[in-house]
Amino acid sequence: MNMVDVILKKRSGQALSAEEIRAFARGAADGSIPDYQLAALLMAICWRGMDARETTCLTMEMMRSGGVMDLSAIGGICVDKHSTGGVGDTTTLVLVPLAAACGAKVAKISGRGLGHTGGTLDKLESIPGCSVEMEQDQFIKQVQQIGCAVIGQTHDLCPADKALYALRDVTGTVESVPLIASSIISKKLASGAGAIVLDVKTGSGALMHTLDASIELAQAMVDIGTHAGKPILALVTGMDQPLGTHVGNTLEVKEAIDILSGRAGGDLLAVSLELGSRMLVACGIAADVGEGKARMRSALESGAGLARLRAMIEAQGGDGSVCDDVSRLPQARFHVEVPAPRDGFVARMDTTAIGFVAQGLGAGRRQKSDVIDPAVGLVMDVRLGDAVRAGQPLATLHLNRQELAQEAIARLQEAIVIAEEKPALPPLVYASVTPQGVERMM
Amino acid sequence: MNMVDVILKKRSGQALSAEEIRAFARGAADGSIPDYQLAALLMAICWRGMDARETTCLTMEMMRSGGVMDLSAIGGICVDKHSTGGVGDTTTLVLVPLAAACGAKVAKISGRGLGHTGGTLDKLESIPGCSVEMEQDQFIKQVQQIGCAVIGQTHDLCPADKALYALRDVTGTVESVPLIASSIISKKLASGAGAIVLDVKTGSGALMHTLDASIELAQAMVDIGTHAGKPILALVTGMDQPLGTHVGNTLEVKEAIDILSGRAGGDLLAVSLELGSRMLVACGIAADVGEGKARMRSALESGAGLARLRAMIEAQGGDGSVCDDVSRLPQARFHVEVPAPRDGFVARMDTTAIGFVAQGLGAGRRQKSDVIDPAVGLVMDVRLGDAVRAGQPLATLHLNRQELAQEAIARLQEAIVIAEEKPALPPLVYASVTPQGVERMM
Repeated sequence: MNMVDVILKKRSGQALSAEEIRAFARGAADGSIPDYQLAALLMAICWRGMDARETTCLTMEMMRSGGVMDLSAIGGICVDKHSTGGVGDTTTLVLVPLAAACGAKVAKISGRGLGHTGGTLDKLESIPGCSVEMEQDQFIKQVQQIGCAVIGQTHDLCPADKALYALRDVTGTVESVPLIASSIISKKLASGAGAIVLDVKTGSGALMHTLDASIELAQAMVDIGTHAGKPILALVTGMDQPLGTHVGNTLEVKEAIDILSGRAGGDLLAVSLELGSRMLVACGIAADVGEGKARMRSALESGAGLARLRAMIEAQGGDGSVCDDVSRLPQARFHVEVPAPRDGFVARMDTTAIGFVAQGLGAGRRQKSDVIDPAVGLVMDVRLGDAVRAGQPLATLHLNRQELAQEAIARLQEAIVIAEEKPALPPLVYASVTPQGVERMM
Repeated sequence: MNMVDVILKKRSGQALSAEEIRAFARGAADGSIPDYQLAALLMAICWRGMDARETTCLTMEMMRSGGVMDLSAIGGICVDKHSTGGVGDTTTLVLVPLAAACGAKVAKISGRGLGHTGGTLDKLESIPGCSVEMEQDQFIKQVQQIGCAVIGQTHDLCPADKALYALRDVTGTVESVPLIASSIISKKLASGAGAIVLDVKTGSGALMHTLDASIELAQAMVDIGTHAGKPILALVTGMDQPLGTHVGNTLEVKEAIDILSGRAGGDLLAVSLELGSRMLVACGIAADVGEGKARMRSALESGAGLARLRAMIEAQGGDGSVCDDVSRLPQARFHVEVPAPRDGFVARMDTTAIGFVAQGLGAGRRQKSDVIDPAVGLVMDVRLGDAVRAGQPLATLHLNRQELAQEAIARLQEAIVIAEEKPALPPLVYASVTPQGVERMM
């Protein structure tokens, strides 16, 4: 196949055939198509888009470019959840143990922090001893025994996606609904997910800044999953402020434990229940979202969720006692308050900037080779709509290098906008997208 | 400079700064920007375009990426002509000697055949002994002595354009008005042209298929040349059929000699006079196009043009006696007529297909490494609007491998469309584009 003809076809706005998409994905995986031709085609796809058939086809070809995990030994439908990434967004550590306590099987392949967003693998690794690497048979065994496991991607899943993602990152072609959707779903399918619940973030801390773009991405992913024969749905949820109050690796583990212990709640718990209840429906444990929520709440109140988290941490080599005593988690040496510069109401937050402040303190990587400091980050002391007085803390920095405080304070004071009028509060769930259609909640 | 930011800026439709364009052109020339980033940026330029300032800036940066020829030793304004490429289009071999005979200085850097179009260098090399390679001082000396020289590009002109063109060819990014315009004009400026006349082809054998696209390209090039301070204008001329009757290397040399000897005329002469007269105006020899045409005609009728062609061929090492006896040019062994399949009028021609038939006989290269057969090609026996009877020859193949005849006949019979009604004839000159504006001739 002549790749120039394929590029010209997409450039002129035509849909590519299954054969052409297969050649593209295989050539990306085995390196037989030069990077410059892949880059030109990726930009042409950003320009012209891909229809549902093309996007599904690209997803399936990327999935087939490497190994596909066979989780059938686990028995029943393994249900997975995927978030497009946020700040203070540790729903996985809340909902996975709760869903497992309700009888769901969650064999989850997770990711690391990227840019301003955190990653579940980094959070788990911040627990002393906890590992996120294991062989497939051990992974399956752990899910059989305790209902859940969260590990990193093994190297042979979706090599086509891996090659294309690396190229997109350096060619300005990351933002494209069909490319994002096919990248996410190909990995979910390759990791053996039987049912999928998606959390598409929208707002100032999200990959997609507008609600329309977030809904379009959610629809594209639900379309692909449906074509692939999987139960799938998406919630479009708000990332107008950090979801939880804690941002940083052990800080977010602590918040998850506080929630599972009944000591905390808030938006992080609310979104975890929305998503978790839909996971129970997707894998057939609950008949509807109402029943799902009731079961999740019951697992929370009985302590069964916390017990499942402890079991998972221990099964992955970690110190489960952190679930009983969060002070056993690594702690930062310095705590510094970020004072409100004036009286007023918290009107807006640049959530991406807040994520980057935490990254700058050492909670995330600027470059792939950077080493994360598990203990650092920040705790938000206010939420959107709160009344504040000048000098009152907006947030508290947790840091190990005191010299980083001054710049972080300035950046947070800029990122958290205080206005005279009380703002209208954004919703937590903006829309629900299922194979039946889109339901906007606002 | 972060090239991803530059790509994202163009991708979002913004104009690039002079500094960003400089980084792009220099990085292409010195290889410091990876091909995949150049490819993504080229596709983003195809998508979003470039405004006049950006296009001029890219042109000047590509020009400055290598050496710029200094032709000041020649004295006066060196005038150049550039065609976007056609079939049976050997205006250079007609108008260069005529313009030189009128006193113009034509120091011309020409190209080779590309795709279905012929190239002046290949035609000159088909003359026994004639060379198109020489050092710059010899080139200048020849123009000083006989008024004209036509040679190939020396290796250090416009390395940025060379790198980008090679990449465009394999990434589906050739067709883009700013990229085509900057590529052409950067080379003209780097080769020292003092005044430029452009021949932008339009129609079934042209790079640009529609008149609007051809005019847009002409305007872009005239804009750049004007910004660079050069007298410049363009004619948009028809490529709805081969311009001359002869297609192939020695065949086109023969037609040029026949015209300069007064034995032939037709559209090739007419377009040569239109372009040549404007070259005389551009370099200040004629006051207007009318005077320019009269001078060109006089040089034709006196034999001064033919004498100048003979002098040029001999100065470049060739056998000048071909100008007195065209039978001294290499001849193909076989002549095969292509019969009209039915009665009717010649209504349309797929001129690109006709060019590819000549290429298939050996007149052009399918791959860079192919060796051209100088003698082969075809002679058209009909023009648009001619009445034909079944069996009457449409064209005559000149070939050295008889086994190629059958396919060539079939392809020509398909490319030359015979209809029942006499068609309206297309104009020879569609539009004139000057710094003052566009004048459409139809």
